[in-house]
Amino acid sequence: MAITTLDDLFVHTLRDILYAERQILKALPKMARKASSAKLKKAFESPHSETEDQIQRLEKVFDEIKQKARGSKCEAIIGIIEEAEDQIDEISDPEVLDAAMLASAQAVEHYEISRYGTLLAYADRLGYSKQLKTLLAENLKEEKQADAKLSKLAESKINDKAAA
Amino acid sequence: MAITTLDDLFVHTLRDILYAERQILKALPKMARKASSAKLKKAFESPHSETEDQIQRLEKVFDEIKQKARGSKCEAIIGIIEEAEDQIDEISDPEVLDAAMLASAQAVEHYEISRYGTLLAYADRLGYSKQLKTLLAENLKEEKQADAKLSKLAESKINDKAAA
Repeated sequence: MAITTLDDLFVHTLRDILYAERQILKALPKMARKASSAKLKKAFESPHSETEDQIQRLEKVFDEIKQKARGSKCEAIIGIIEEAEDQIDEISDPEVLDAAMLASAQAVEHYEISRYGTLLAYADRLGYSKQLKTLLAENLKEEKQADAKLSKLAESKINDKAAA
Repeated sequence: MAITTLDDLFVHTLRDILYAERQILKALPKMARKASSAKLKKAFESPHSETEDQIQRLEKVFDEIKQKARGSKCEAIIGIIEEAEDQIDEISDPEVLDAAMLASAQAVEHYEISRYGTLLAYADRLGYSKQLKTLLAENLKEEKQADAKLSKLAESKINDKAAA
């Protein structure tokens, strides 16, 4: 896709995050299976349905701008997930693995926070509808909440166990 | 490197971010050269010396824990930088390219914010010295400030021009 205007860049970034969300949807069950802490397992299971909601919102955004909801390969998320999967293979201690997977999940959340923030700034500049911006803002809010929840979990439980 | 304890995971994460900072140091001059907005050019030039300071702080952290300051390949940052470089090749309009590069820089900042946050949580749990934690906290603070600065620039200038 040739990018010549900010509208094009908006579509391109939208495709990038749609691809990323779909990759995350695939990676989450594997991470949940490998988690030994019940709380972490739950923390990987609940984002699964959240991610499905986020994908649906993205599809609505594509509808709004009359574009097909198509993902576009996102090297950044591939790299982040690859690192997480390498750790699953490399770390034998289950509690240390929990700490590592939690950190990877936070790297994912931060990637998404940056992309949704960017999309919202573009949408604003392009004068897109309030409805479209609300869809993106909801995804951004959920990612920020998910990151805060993971931080709390890291500080309260997981790292304690890993250091024991 | 075999990761069996939280100490090992700390060292592994430290190597990951050292590698990432070094890659960023290499990528920044290219981005500054390609930026057409004077403000964005400056925004890519000043992090260069900041990144050098951050690398020095990381080297001090390695010293503190009596480990060699060695980077370890970080697929995540490779992916983020690859995306940024692809955009340089794909986007012909200089103002749209500015908007895209600014967004990529924010993705980089967010990756670093998540990693420094994780390192600080581990350092706390492992009972590392106040001095060590201050070094990481300074890097975290700078990354957050850089991200906020880029957000402000995106909202005030760059996206306006790209949408014109």
